[in-house]
Amino acid sequence: MTKDVEVVEQGGEYSAKDYHDPPPAPLIDPEELTQWSFYRALIAEFIATLLFLYITVLTVIGYKSQTDPAKNADQCGGVGILGIAWAFGGMIFVLVYCTAGISGGHINPAVTFGLFLARKVSLIRAVLYMVAQCLGAICGVGLVKAFQKSLYTRYGGGANELQAGYNKGTGLGAEIIGTFVLVYTVFSATDPKRNARDSHVPVLAPLPIGFAVFMVHLATIPITGTGINPARSLGAAVIYNKTKAWDDQWLFWVGPFIGAAIAAFYHQYILRAAAIKALGSFRSNA
Amino acid sequence: MTKDVEVVEQGGEYSAKDYHDPPPAPLIDPEELTQWSFYRALIAEFIATLLFLYITVLTVIGYKSQTDPAKNADQCGGVGILGIAWAFGGMIFVLVYCTAGISGGHINPAVTFGLFLARKVSLIRAVLYMVAQCLGAICGVGLVKAFQKSLYTRYGGGANELQAGYNKGTGLGAEIIGTFVLVYTVFSATDPKRNARDSHVPVLAPLPIGFAVFMVHLATIPITGTGINPARSLGAAVIYNKTKAWDDQWLFWVGPFIGAAIAAFYHQYILRAAAIKALGSFRSNA
Amino acid sequence: MTKDVEVVEQGGEYSAKDYHDPPPAPLIDPEELTQWSFYRALIAEFIATLLFLYITVLTVIGYKSQTDPAKNADQCGGVGILGIAWAFGGMIFVLVYCTAGISGGHINPAVTFGLFLARKVSLIRAVLYMVAQCLGAICGVGLVKAFQKSLYTRYGGGANELQAGYNKGTGLGAEIIGTFVLVYTVFSATDPKRNARDSHVPVLAPLPIGFAVFMVHLATIPITGTGINPARSLGAAVIYNKTKAWDDQWLFWVGPFIGAAIAAFYHQYILRAAAIKALGSFRSNA
Amino acid sequence: MTKDVEVVEQGGEYSAKDYHDPPPAPLIDPEELTQWSFYRALIAEFIATLLFLYITVLTVIGYKSQTDPAKNADQCGGVGILGIAWAFGGMIFVLVYCTAGISGGHINPAVTFGLFLARKVSLIRAVLYMVAQCLGAICGVGLVKAFQKSLYTRYGGGANELQAGYNKGTGLGAEIIGTFVLVYTVFSATDPKRNARDSHVPVLAPLPIGFAVFMVHLATIPITGTGINPARSLGAAVIYNKTKAWDDQWLFWVGPFIGAAIAAFYHQYILRAAAIKALGSFRSNA
Repeated sequence: MTKDVEVVEQGGEYSAKDYHDPPPAPLIDPEELTQWSFYRALIAEFIATLLFLYITVLTVIGYKSQTDPAKNADQCGGVGILGIAWAFGGMIFVLVYCTAGISGGHINPAVTFGLFLARKVSLIRAVLYMVAQCLGAICGVGLVKAFQKSLYTRYGGGANELQAGYNKGTGLGAEIIGTFVLVYTVFSATDPKRNARDSHVPVLAPLPIGFAVFMVHLATIPITGTGINPARSLGAAVIYNKTKAWDDQWLFWVGPFIGAAIAAFYHQYILRAAAIKALGSFRSNA
Repeated sequence: MTKDVEVVEQGGEYSAKDYHDPPPAPLIDPEELTQWSFYRALIAEFIATLLFLYITVLTVIGYKSQTDPAKNADQCGGVGILGIAWAFGGMIFVLVYCTAGISGGHINPAVTFGLFLARKVSLIRAVLYMVAQCLGAICGVGLVKAFQKSLYTRYGGGANELQAGYNKGTGLGAEIIGTFVLVYTVFSATDPKRNARDSHVPVLAPLPIGFAVFMVHLATIPITGTGINPARSLGAAVIYNKTKAWDDQWLFWVGPFIGAAIAAFYHQYILRAAAIKALGSFRSNA
Repeated sequence: MTKDVEVVEQGGEYSAKDYHDPPPAPLIDPEELTQWSFYRALIAEFIATLLFLYITVLTVIGYKSQTDPAKNADQCGGVGILGIAWAFGGMIFVLVYCTAGISGGHINPAVTFGLFLARKVSLIRAVLYMVAQCLGAICGVGLVKAFQKSLYTRYGGGANELQAGYNKGTGLGAEIIGTFVLVYTVFSATDPKRNARDSHVPVLAPLPIGFAVFMVHLATIPITGTGINPARSLGAAVIYNKTKAWDDQWLFWVGPFIGAAIAAFYHQYILRAAAIKALGSFRSNA
Repeated sequence: MTKDVEVVEQGGEYSAKDYHDPPPAPLIDPEELTQWSFYRALIAEFIATLLFLYITVLTVIGYKSQTDPAKNADQCGGVGILGIAWAFGGMIFVLVYCTAGISGGHINPAVTFGLFLARKVSLIRAVLYMVAQCLGAICGVGLVKAFQKSLYTRYGGGANELQAGYNKGTGLGAEIIGTFVLVYTVFSATDPKRNARDSHVPVLAPLPIGFAVFMVHLATIPITGTGINPARSLGAAVIYNKTKAWDDQWLFWVGPFIGAAIAAFYHQYILRAAAIKALGSFRSNA
């Protein structure tokens, strides 16, 4: 039924439209499960999240080790907080570039959640992506610990924790707005309407996504160490496995999921004004 | 007389033109006010300026808090002035990328003013954009204060102030030239003639705009803290609300507006040699 | 059997394919040796690797000289480890941009090895590229030593060595995964299938390759000084010529070659599922 | 006559060529002098070089002022040498982006000299560009001095000088190779053959040019302060006007011009193998 409505709508505007909005992804698509490209996408998400955590946590541990005043080290000798922010943002740029054509390049359960809410991916794909991302993150942090166990444990394991002096509301707010910045950028980069009209949108796409991650790290490392990626926070917590990291873990799931939901809402209902269409299609598929 | 020569020249080349200069925007366009896309653009400017101030002021406060010698902190422990300059430039890159197709991606009353002088936007749109930008900036800084009130007040609130050792003329000059660099880059990036001929122009566009902001911050943070965006300066002043920030506030409106006007003049009258045409169209619309 | 299925599949889709996979490069191509473009490519690889080592080792020596506490120097006075990581990544970006159309822009024996395994270059080209790269690297480091002999020797000669506190397994692992990140990015950037479908892939290509190098340096400078390029490690060892650098040299050949092989396998057999086709073509060419 | 030869040559290859090599620029082209676009290009070079020097020298002075140990300042408090290198590289990126379509975006007499040797610009244009660049540089540094006279003089005026501990040969070598990196990148970015075949070449062009400048600054700031741009060195020397800066000035003209000449030779005779054609066209025009 909705399909009819959509066809009519599209029919009316078709000659003036230079882009094509794909139909909303079904909640469950059994055919998807029979295709190699689906499993390949899961592998790509697993490997990408593994590499993301490996490089970034190694950078964090190396920085803390090189600048440890207890070892009488040179306090300026590491890559700095700026270098850590670059590691997170730069890796997302590289990995989104590499995996965009394979899996869509999510590398983050909050991004997957936002795209699911906007009906860009099916429920089954969203859930399995998140599983692959979390497993990848655990393995990535595990590699860092395997490489340098004593340093890893001494320097905080790359775990996200609410820093002293900030209350839970602030931490949650920082995670919500930070994830909003990221997921809003992802939506802007993958909007078929914008792709068709502005040549910079599809070509640059991975770069502003990486920069969004870089920017949020500059701003919120002092508050929460910056999560905005539940797989990243879970992976570090599982391998580090200290009480504080587990106590704060909910912050790094609830915050990012709320932020992603607001970004999906903002993009779909305000910027694309797709309220009526989206509502209709949810009804018919559910 | 010159006009005749130009018309002849254009007449001779007209069929060879591979681009289209849109007609100058009217001063007041009542139809604009009836379209959803106009209000959507105002919302996008509001949200983008809010996110810009939230991320950047949070970065400034976090840096000052982490490196405060009074707290015996590690002086190298924050993101550095370089990180702060990246925060301002990088956010403009991300936000121009995201909002260019929705609102034009101004996020700055000086940019709006320059584009208005060049007749790219109507008077009514220019005024309402500026209002949306200022409200967004106030809300963005307000969020930072709400998150960490004591740190916010102790570390200067991200407000623009003329630094000790510089006189008002220097501060004004720094704001004028800094804004000129930014608005000149914006004009270069959005010139339909250049878009048609140089493939790098439309594709990269948000990146040099962000870099222009980054560069100006590197150069003028020691002088004024770098405004070049009246909404940014007003938002911080309203929330911080100290005498010094208000006393210097005029600098951060007069300077950027003069700089934007010179950039508009330079682009339209020197680089595009549009003097006669622009004059003619002002006459006919006014 | 699988082959049949694949052929059928391809047959069914063939007319819809918008890209062309070049045939696997022969192991030995005598015609190649008669073309000026082949020798020009060798020269380009030589010059590019020379410039890469010259700029990066000069940056390393300059940083160590400016921040030497024995000289009572300002510990924050140099470009920092972050600046060194930028030097390596940024030069790869610039040089891949400049030489991609001439030689393919390898500038690294591990990249050449990976592309050879994937049958993108012939055996003879791969071997001669590696020779050119190693000679270029030796000359590049030699220039640095010629310019400032005492500083060069005092500050470690830019040589890759396993740092104190890490065992050989960790060093080898760091080199394997680091090179995997780089070569995986190279494969993603040069995949004809992705080039045809995602507009960002061919246009941005040199940038994520440079960023991959930048990221790996942020993470592994504390462990091995970061090799991931056997020519870079050999060049510095030859000119520096100390026992420790030679003792660890095998790490910087075995690690990168294993990492490149895994990346080639991952791209060809998992992401492109080319197992059967590649096997078939190896058989027919060998 | 050459024209005939070229037409024949082109005629022979025409059907296979997807690009067009423009004919060599004449040494003197009287018609050029009658066109507004020529004077506009001179103005654009003047303004761009002015802005380049203004931003970069202001960054240098601000950094030295903020980290002056004599003032008991925070040694990590400025943008760092890394920030200074970004200022030079980033401004070149922005300004090449903005002026490429107007004047070709040289902003550097060495670049102009290299392009003149390759017959991309006429002699008269080359000479007048260099004059405009030098005047722009003088005005840009003059603005910095006008803004903060005492700081400007106390902190070295942004002048290029051979640093203590390096001999003249090293300084000259550093300038030659540094300028080679820059001008080689410029040639790679503007090669019509590569533009036609590699989509990343024309689109990214200003970015690797800016990065080349950034990289060379990371490497050679400790040796010469990094010139690789005679207008930049002259502008600072004229305004700073101290003996040492004038004594070393020849280094910053001879070095860059040699480096640019080698880059022009390398690109035209090795990479493009244009020896015979270029020789022929020089003969006929001289």
